[in-house]
Amino acid sequence: MKNLPIGVFDSGVGGLTVVKEIMSQLPDEEIIYFGDTARVPYGNKSGETVTAYSRQITRFLLSKQVKAVVIACNTASAFALETIRQEVPVPMLGVVKPGAKTAAAATRNGRIGVIGTEGTVRSGLYEEYLREINPRCRVYGQACPLFVPLVEEGWIRDEITKQVSDRYLSNLLKEDVDTIVLGCTHYPLLREVVQETVGERVTLVNPAYETARELKKMLAERDWLNDGSKPPNHTFYVSDGAEKFRQFANSILPCEMIETGDVFLKVFSL
Amino acid sequence: MKNLPIGVFDSGVGGLTVVKEIMSQLPDEEIIYFGDTARVPYGNKSGETVTAYSRQITRFLLSKQVKAVVIACNTASAFALETIRQEVPVPMLGVVKPGAKTAAAATRNGRIGVIGTEGTVRSGLYEEYLREINPRCRVYGQACPLFVPLVEEGWIRDEITKQVSDRYLSNLLKEDVDTIVLGCTHYPLLREVVQETVGERVTLVNPAYETARELKKMLAERDWLNDGSKPPNHTFYVSDGAEKFRQFANSILPCEMIETGDVFLKVFSL
Repeated sequence: MKNLPIGVFDSGVGGLTVVKEIMSQLPDEEIIYFGDTARVPYGNKSGETVTAYSRQITRFLLSKQVKAVVIACNTASAFALETIRQEVPVPMLGVVKPGAKTAAAATRNGRIGVIGTEGTVRSGLYEEYLREINPRCRVYGQACPLFVPLVEEGWIRDEITKQVSDRYLSNLLKEDVDTIVLGCTHYPLLREVVQETVGERVTLVNPAYETARELKKMLAERDWLNDGSKPPNHTFYVSDGAEKFRQFANSILPCEMIETGDVFLKVFSL
Repeated sequence: MKNLPIGVFDSGVGGLTVVKEIMSQLPDEEIIYFGDTARVPYGNKSGETVTAYSRQITRFLLSKQVKAVVIACNTASAFALETIRQEVPVPMLGVVKPGAKTAAAATRNGRIGVIGTEGTVRSGLYEEYLREINPRCRVYGQACPLFVPLVEEGWIRDEITKQVSDRYLSNLLKEDVDTIVLGCTHYPLLREVVQETVGERVTLVNPAYETARELKKMLAERDWLNDGSKPPNHTFYVSDGAEKFRQFANSILPCEMIETGDVFLKVFSL
């Protein structure tokens, strides 16, 4: 069991921010990643459709003999995790619960903002988890549908992005939140602009760090940590646009794709 | 043959701007529409994937006994029309050739801009058709990936949208174009902002009008025009998010969906 790979999936490239954190905290683990670039984005689709896509990808990862599955997409974690985890024989983790845990620990005034896709905010799952941890906290959701296209356009430190951020976050600031969850895997790339909008006294929470930590804890408890007897051979699957994915991945991950031979990129049709 | 419906498809809701034009110019024709809302958008996906999706939808429409198929999506027209038209027994039209024809007739200085999705611009098909009509014209493409999310966010007449428009179109203005094709079905909804950016001396071309005109001409030549013996009963299929689609459709189309009973909305899984 120990030396089996970990399956990670996302609607596209955003989940690579979670992969990066797993590679950093669990450098001996081998990763099989699936990015559903042929059907991206998930954020404005229905819970039923996102669950159907997630189930299909989870089955694909299971066929690769993974020892655990991480849903590195907030929308899929929000809509699909609780359903699919009951259907599969391996442990599954999402990014929502770890994100909620970190936010609950970070807040001082109990007023927490959650920004994410329309689907993630509509699901109300961050609020549900946050109130399980602290029933007295107040949670304010705000969908930010333009953030992902702005990141994909590369307008990261940009006056227009700053204005969009100011508009989206003005309601959360009115509610006096002191903590905001970056509830979409693309948003950590906009951290600087968002921090400028909300000011230094608001804590921004990136669920990726805590997700990797929970994964490590879970593997350690089961004595499933990879023994590192051979260097990991990561594999990345996408359902479309391999070359574009490779370029984005190379700009995010600490390893070069394909070139070094320790990472493989494959295109797979669902 | 005459009284069979016309199949129309798009990646999502944008094609409704083409449906509206068909309803206006061909009020007796019955329409079967498919919006692929479960896999939208097509604009940043590969030609192979867009062609595979378009083939699947065309087969679905053929199973509904349509007498012709209109691809009301620029990206799918650009990537898939020439391939799929050779595989099917009914005539097919896209929006790219009609758009090119209108632009070629409108330009005075032979310098034409084409704005659209990344896929439409990358395909180079507008340029190919324009140079077939007028080999001496110069064509400048500009992808505008944020325009669709801005429309879907409802930021239609908006200062931020104006700034995005100014940034995207500055290169086309430097090239002294006098005509710009709105090469994505969402863009006519941003016509005012785009016109403000480029000034009144630049002609904006919406391919929808000419597409409906060509459809009418094609049906008339074959003596396939609906004889109007019974009022049309339009049917709209989507692959996800029926309620959201219905709301958008009701804001665009001259008929009420479901409510009046002359239009039916169905959800269909591909």
